[in-house]
Amino acid sequence: MLNDDEIRLRNKISEIEGLNTLLTQQAELRLNGLAKPPGSLGKLEKLAIQLAGITGQLYNDLKKRAVIIMCSDNGIVEEGVAATPQSVTLHQTINFTRGLTGVSVIAKQFNSDLMVVDVGVNADLSHPDIINRKIRKCTHNFCKQAAMTREEAVKAVLIGIEMAELAHEKGYQILGVGEMGIGNTTTSSSILSALTGADVEATVGKGAGLTEEAFKKKKEVVRTALSKYQPDPDDPIDVLSKVGGFDIAAMAGVFLGAALLKIPVVIDGFISAVAALVAQKLAPKARDYMIASHASYEKGYALAIKALELEPGLLLDMRLGEGSGCPIMFMIADAACAVIRDMGTFEEAKIDDDYIQSITGDQFFTVL
Amino acid sequence: MLNDDEIRLRNKISEIEGLNTLLTQQAELRLNGLAKPPGSLGKLEKLAIQLAGITGQLYNDLKKRAVIIMCSDNGIVEEGVAATPQSVTLHQTINFTRGLTGVSVIAKQFNSDLMVVDVGVNADLSHPDIINRKIRKCTHNFCKQAAMTREEAVKAVLIGIEMAELAHEKGYQILGVGEMGIGNTTTSSSILSALTGADVEATVGKGAGLTEEAFKKKKEVVRTALSKYQPDPDDPIDVLSKVGGFDIAAMAGVFLGAALLKIPVVIDGFISAVAALVAQKLAPKARDYMIASHASYEKGYALAIKALELEPGLLLDMRLGEGSGCPIMFMIADAACAVIRDMGTFEEAKIDDDYIQSITGDQFFTVL
Repeated sequence: MLNDDEIRLRNKISEIEGLNTLLTQQAELRLNGLAKPPGSLGKLEKLAIQLAGITGQLYNDLKKRAVIIMCSDNGIVEEGVAATPQSVTLHQTINFTRGLTGVSVIAKQFNSDLMVVDVGVNADLSHPDIINRKIRKCTHNFCKQAAMTREEAVKAVLIGIEMAELAHEKGYQILGVGEMGIGNTTTSSSILSALTGADVEATVGKGAGLTEEAFKKKKEVVRTALSKYQPDPDDPIDVLSKVGGFDIAAMAGVFLGAALLKIPVVIDGFISAVAALVAQKLAPKARDYMIASHASYEKGYALAIKALELEPGLLLDMRLGEGSGCPIMFMIADAACAVIRDMGTFEEAKIDDDYIQSITGDQFFTVL
Repeated sequence: MLNDDEIRLRNKISEIEGLNTLLTQQAELRLNGLAKPPGSLGKLEKLAIQLAGITGQLYNDLKKRAVIIMCSDNGIVEEGVAATPQSVTLHQTINFTRGLTGVSVIAKQFNSDLMVVDVGVNADLSHPDIINRKIRKCTHNFCKQAAMTREEAVKAVLIGIEMAELAHEKGYQILGVGEMGIGNTTTSSSILSALTGADVEATVGKGAGLTEEAFKKKKEVVRTALSKYQPDPDDPIDVLSKVGGFDIAAMAGVFLGAALLKIPVVIDGFISAVAALVAQKLAPKARDYMIASHASYEKGYALAIKALELEPGLLLDMRLGEGSGCPIMFMIADAACAVIRDMGTFEEAKIDDDYIQSITGDQFFTVL
């Protein structure tokens, strides 16, 4: 028996449509008619086509943009799998509003707003610039019990969809998905192994800088949990509830909500890519609305993005998280929008002989 | 006996200094004190350090930026090594001034100017927005004779240095190096093979879209020329004169001039990377001022950038040339500048207990 929330979620998911293929075809046609060797602008062209298919418009203006940052704590940190104290989740959640963090600075540089959402920070938090959707303070330590109930997982995903809806109401034209949650590379690795069947050696990395011993422990924790709970790879909600986090569940919701509302949505690094994979498993068409940004240095990213059949456009060796890669990718999207809109067609770029004569004085300029 | 120009060039080269290591150390120290795991912003941090070492300032503002585009024709196109007629060099050189080309559009999007320079377009060209430094209309077909004299190669390099000086006078704070010249992937491949000893199979690509037959012919042309002239890999001027182009020689000059004037300079794609390698062979320290932008799809790029020991930050499958990748990299440099300048230090990002209490109500927030 599904509860009301899960029925609501299923209904939302069923409303997600694929890209507008009339527009993707129009975009491709226009790009092939521009004065350049066909395809020579590579991913800028692919992105321009995707954006047309998402928005239903050939030319797009993505000036109003935001990174949605899901903040939450993870009970699993009790096991010593994180190099950083849990209090940093709270501190950085506050620092997002003070403009001091990596994503704050990069977002500001590229005219992007932040939407900071508390879905489970381990403190009572009341702040005018932090959206309070706290499900509960911190998930359970999944070495001892499932991280959350199925109902909580569904609720977190719905919160993500709600935040995409809120962003849409506010007029945002492109979104990024970031996070803050000490311990969330452990939950991400667990989810990734559960969904893909990949061994922990391929999914667990050193996060924000673990010692060799703690790294070994982290792999053991993930391996043990997966063997204990046997999360169902065909049921992403089951996976989220057993070894996930509120942040990742809510981030998956943002990806779903963006697809639902036909808003392009940028994946940040490892954790964001895992959340995107959860969304894609829930709604395969949601993938069409996603844009990979940077190839995160964190182990597991490559596997997650490959599972999504997406390719990053930035190779910056970043591994900060927070959504810090998203505003950079917004600028790449700007470039894609400019190319399809502003470049001359072969016809427009043709220089007629009179013009050439007028500036060259060459009467018989030979076309080889 | 060196002629006057070559003595001038040697003198210029001897004035190139390495990075300011006091500033690179200061930058590294500041970055390590910012509220993030050390090194977690990857190449943004490396770039911030490099920029500090180049300009001698910890914080940089690179608002005034330009792509210098060297335009020239190549006699080698007589051999059928290019998919595009030679007249396109002239047409696109004019189109740069009309805002219709790929680089024009991307540069405008990212507030960058263009400096279009005619160093050898195969037409008399007089245009207020094109800087006339034509050495001669088109190089020779190097299947028949050396592309240019040694004196012409030196002159072209000096023109590049002059253009960097002009850009410096105009207040430009970061430069990109682009080109327009049908046939210049053939000259680039030839130079790259000559300088590195790499076989043509590793350096010759399909350029703007060759047929299999023309591709085979292109490789044959390069192989034959190298075997005929035996250019001296330790004398880049010799290489340029025998199998190069005016565009590449002048681009190499821009890289040298930027190093001389301590201006960061961005490499575009394959041809730009080969010109950068020529500059580095002439003046090894010039390398420190170079920033790789995108990993060009054109074969040979990977080899050239590896020889420079640089790594691209953009993975966009672009192969248009013109300098089209440079303005995108200017934005990445902006991000690097913002990170080092605006992010909070651990000290600044520390949230004191009173503040936490005031917003959380938690009297005993536990630091795990």
